[in-house]
Amino acid sequence: MLPRRPLAWPAWLLRGAPGAAGSWGRPVGPLARRGCCSAPGTPEVPLTRERYPVRRLPFSTVSKQDLAAFERIVPGGVVTDPEALQAPNVDWLRTLRGCSKVLLRPRTSEEVSHILRHCHERNLAVNPQGGNTGMVGGSVPVFDEIILSTARMNRVLSFHSVSGILVCQAGCVLEELSRYVEERDFIMPLDLGAKGSCHIGGNVATNAGGLRFLRYGSLHGTVLGLEVVLADGTVLDCLTSLRKDNTGYDLKQLFIGSEGTLGIITTVSILCPPKPRAVNVAFLVTCVPPACGPGSPRPARLPHPALRTPGCPGFAEVLQTFSTCKGMLGEILSAFEFMDAVCMQLVGRHLHLASPVQESPFYVLIETSGSNAGHDAEKLGHFLEHALGSGLVTDGTMATDQRKVKVPCVLLAGDGNLHLNVTAEAFSPSLLAALEPHVYEWTAGQQGSVSAEHGVGFRKRDVLGYSKPPGALQLMQQLKALLDPKGILNPYKTLPSQA
Amino acid sequence: MLPRRPLAWPAWLLRGAPGAAGSWGRPVGPLARRGCCSAPGTPEVPLTRERYPVRRLPFSTVSKQDLAAFERIVPGGVVTDPEALQAPNVDWLRTLRGCSKVLLRPRTSEEVSHILRHCHERNLAVNPQGGNTGMVGGSVPVFDEIILSTARMNRVLSFHSVSGILVCQAGCVLEELSRYVEERDFIMPLDLGAKGSCHIGGNVATNAGGLRFLRYGSLHGTVLGLEVVLADGTVLDCLTSLRKDNTGYDLKQLFIGSEGTLGIITTVSILCPPKPRAVNVAFLVTCVPPACGPGSPRPARLPHPALRTPGCPGFAEVLQTFSTCKGMLGEILSAFEFMDAVCMQLVGRHLHLASPVQESPFYVLIETSGSNAGHDAEKLGHFLEHALGSGLVTDGTMATDQRKVKVPCVLLAGDGNLHLNVTAEAFSPSLLAALEPHVYEWTAGQQGSVSAEHGVGFRKRDVLGYSKPPGALQLMQQLKALLDPKGILNPYKTLPSQA
Repeated sequence: MLPRRPLAWPAWLLRGAPGAAGSWGRPVGPLARRGCCSAPGTPEVPLTRERYPVRRLPFSTVSKQDLAAFERIVPGGVVTDPEALQAPNVDWLRTLRGCSKVLLRPRTSEEVSHILRHCHERNLAVNPQGGNTGMVGGSVPVFDEIILSTARMNRVLSFHSVSGILVCQAGCVLEELSRYVEERDFIMPLDLGAKGSCHIGGNVATNAGGLRFLRYGSLHGTVLGLEVVLADGTVLDCLTSLRKDNTGYDLKQLFIGSEGTLGIITTVSILCPPKPRAVNVAFLVTCVPPACGPGSPRPARLPHPALRTPGCPGFAEVLQTFSTCKGMLGEILSAFEFMDAVCMQLVGRHLHLASPVQESPFYVLIETSGSNAGHDAEKLGHFLEHALGSGLVTDGTMATDQRKVKVPCVLLAGDGNLHLNVTAEAFSPSLLAALEPHVYEWTAGQQGSVSAEHGVGFRKRDVLGYSKPPGALQLMQQLKALLDPKGILNPYKTLPSQA
Repeated sequence: MLPRRPLAWPAWLLRGAPGAAGSWGRPVGPLARRGCCSAPGTPEVPLTRERYPVRRLPFSTVSKQDLAAFERIVPGGVVTDPEALQAPNVDWLRTLRGCSKVLLRPRTSEEVSHILRHCHERNLAVNPQGGNTGMVGGSVPVFDEIILSTARMNRVLSFHSVSGILVCQAGCVLEELSRYVEERDFIMPLDLGAKGSCHIGGNVATNAGGLRFLRYGSLHGTVLGLEVVLADGTVLDCLTSLRKDNTGYDLKQLFIGSEGTLGIITTVSILCPPKPRAVNVAFLVTCVPPACGPGSPRPARLPHPALRTPGCPGFAEVLQTFSTCKGMLGEILSAFEFMDAVCMQLVGRHLHLASPVQESPFYVLIETSGSNAGHDAEKLGHFLEHALGSGLVTDGTMATDQRKVKVPCVLLAGDGNLHLNVTAEAFSPSLLAALEPHVYEWTAGQQGSVSAEHGVGFRKRDVLGYSKPPGALQLMQQLKALLDPKGILNPYKTLPSQA
C-alpha cells in the first residue's frame, strides 16, 4: 500500500485549464475564463485575414436593413458596439482575430431559425459561438461573419431522475449543468478544463472528449438527441430521449463534431451516469529501466521525448501498468494519464510546485470512481501492492478526494490521446512551421489522428489530409454541399480550403 | 439475502433466440440457426411481391454477360443453383420471400468494390446479406436483387491486447468473435440471441443493441472505424482504430444503422471491454400493491398488459427498484430486465418450465458483471437486503454463474426498450392490421420509437412517420440520393416508399 499524503498532492492538479494544455505560451489557470482575453495591457491580436493566406468568399455584408430585420427577430439581442465585439472576435489562444461587426443573441430555436432563414436568403455568413474556448479557431470569425452566440439559450428543459436523461438548450454552461445534475445524484458524461465557460452545444459540435472519456465514452454514444437548425432555417428535430432508436438513419450523428458547419445545434438530449460515491487518485512512478534512469545521459540524436516515448525504454512498463490496471480495477477505472519528466519539470518550474514523488522519466496518474468506497479502496490497494511487488511501479502517492479532484493538464491518456505541449517565449511562426510538418508526418506514419481531441476549426483544416483519405474528404465536401449549399455556416473551417 | 437456488433457475434463460423475442409464432431455440429455415415439410413462404403492395423498380435483370463478369470477379463465388438460393431468399421469420437468382460470395473488399462497380454501371440492384437473422426483412431480396453475402469475409485482421481494439472483416460471426476475444481476456461490446449466425457487419449495419447495451452502450460509441464500399464501388476508408479522432465529420456514423442502403460495410474496427471476472444474476418479484395482486380481478376495459404497464399499479415499484439498483450496484450493473405475468405464463406453458419464484404481475431480472467476485456479491447482497427490507421486492432467487448466463427473451430492459410479443395460432394479416396502428399510435403518443431495436428493413419502412418528423425523412432521402443516386443498394428498405 502507498502512503496517503493528501496534502502533498500537487495543487496544479486542482486547477482548470481549457483543453488539456496551455499550449503556445498562453498562461493557464485563472485567465482561462472568457472575457479576460481582452484584459487591458495585453497586446492586440493580429487580424486573421492579415496573418494567414485566406481570401474572403463572396458573401454579402450586413446592411442597415439586415440589422433592422435582426432587431425584429431578436429584440434587444443585436450587439454592434465595437467594444463589446472585441472579445468574441478573438480566440482563446489569442492568435486569431476576426472583424465581425454584429453579434446576435437569440433565446430560442425559433429565433435561430428566423436568423438563418434571413442570412440564407441574403447570403450572409454566420459564425456560431458557444463559450469560445476552442483551441483551433473554430469559434471566432475569420472575416466579418455574423457571430451567433448561444449564450442566452441556457435553459434546462427537462431531467428524468430514473433514466438520467437531461434535455437542455445548447447555450447551457457545462459546469452549471454539472451542478444541476449532481444535485440530483448524477454527473455529466463529460468534464473538461474549460467547463466554467464552454457551452454544451459547443461541446457536442466539437465532439469534446475530456476527462471522463475513458469511463463514459464518446458523445456519439451519450448524446441521445439533438435539435439542429439547418443553413436555410429549417429546424431538424432529432430530439429523442431514447437510449435505443433504430428508426432510420441516425441523423444527429452528422452534427456531432461537425463544428457548426452543417447546422447549428440548439437543443441537446444527453444521458447522465449516476454520480460515483467514491473517487480515489493515485500518482505513480513507473519502473525505470537502468538505461533510462534520471541520472543517465540523454542520447543526443533522439527527437523530443514526447515524440519518442512509445519506443523509449520505460514506455513498455507504462503500457503494462495500464493493462494490469484495467484488469484489476476494471469497472472503477475512470482515468489513466501519463506524463514524462520534461512535463513534470515544466510544471515545477512555472507553477513553483514540488513533485510529491521521486524523479523519473515517466509518471502515471490513475483515477477510480465507484459506488462503494470500501470496495474501491480495496481494489486500488490490491493493484498498488501488485504493481509495487512486481516492480512495475517504484513510488507513488495517493489522495482520497471527497471534493472530486480534477485531472487537467497531462500528456497521454488511457484513450490513446497525446497532448503535445510546446512552450516558447513568444509565438514564433518559424518555430511552428519547423515543428508542424514533422509532428503531423510522424503521427500519420503511426496511423494516428492529427486532431484526436481539439478538432479542426480554422487552424487544422489544411492538415486533414494527414489523417483522412481523399475519398473521405470528398464525402465531407459533398455533405457540406448538401446541407449548406451556399456555404454560409462557419466558413473557412473544418473542411480543407478548396484548391 | 436471498436463497441461492441455482438449479431452480429456469432453463429458458440459457437458450438463445434471435433478437429478443420469437414473435409471430415462430419457434425459438434450436431452429434459430440459419439454414434450418428451409427444413423439409415446412410450408413454402409466399413471395413478398405477391403478398405486399410493392412494385419492382426499373433495375436491369442479370444477364449471362453479368454472370460471366461476376465469375471473373469472384471465381467460384457465384451461386445460381435454385436449391442453394432458397434459404437466402427467405427471412428468419419466414414471412418474406424474394426471388433472387444470383448470390455472390466475395472474400475481400476489393471484390465487393468490383461487384458494385459492375452493378452500378449495369443498374443492377444489390441486397447485402450477413447472417440473415433480422426481424424486419432487411436482409432478403424483395424481387430479384442480387444477394451479396459477407459469409466468406470472415477473417480477424488484428487484435490489440492492451487497448482491446479488434479489426475484422464484416462477415465474422459474432459468436466466433466473442470466443476469439474471450480467449484474450476481453469480450465483445454486444451480445444477442442470434450470435451464432449473425455477422458483425450486419450488427453494425443494423445498429444492433442486444444484451450488453446497458453497460457498454451503443455501437455508435464502440465502433471505432469502418471500411465501406459505396454504391459506385468506391472504397471509403474510415478504418481508424482510435478512441478519439476529431479530424472532420465522423463519416462512419452514417453507415451504422443504415441497413446497407448507403454502402456495404466490409471491415469493422471495434472496442472490446475487458472480460468481467464475476457474473451474478438475480430474478426478483417486485412489490405487489393490493389492487394489482395475482388473485385480484383484471378490469375489463384495460388494453393488453404490456401496453398499460407504465401506468399500472406496481410499475412505479419496478422503476423504484431500477433507481435503487443503479445507485447501489452502480458500475457493475450490466442488465435490468422486466417481464409481466402474461409473459411468464406463456414461458411456462410453451416451454414447460415452472417459475422459480412466487406468482406476481411483475418480475425483474438483474445481472451484474465485475472484476471482483467478492465485491460484486457483497454489493448485490446489500441491494437485495435493502430491496427486501424496504418492501420493494417480495421474493427472488439468485444464480451465480461461472458459465456466463445469457438473458434472451424478456419484455422491458433497463435501456427503455419494450419487446411486445404477440402470439397466435398462425400468421393473420387481419390480426396484424388490427394491432399495428394501435401500437404505433400509442408509441408515438409516448414519444417512443416504433423500432427501438430491430430496425426498419422492408417491414417498417412505411411506419417511420410515427417516430421521424417529415424534415428528418426528407434528409434521409437526400442522403440516400447523395450516396446511392441510382438506388441500387438494398432497395425497398429503410426509407419510406415514395408516394
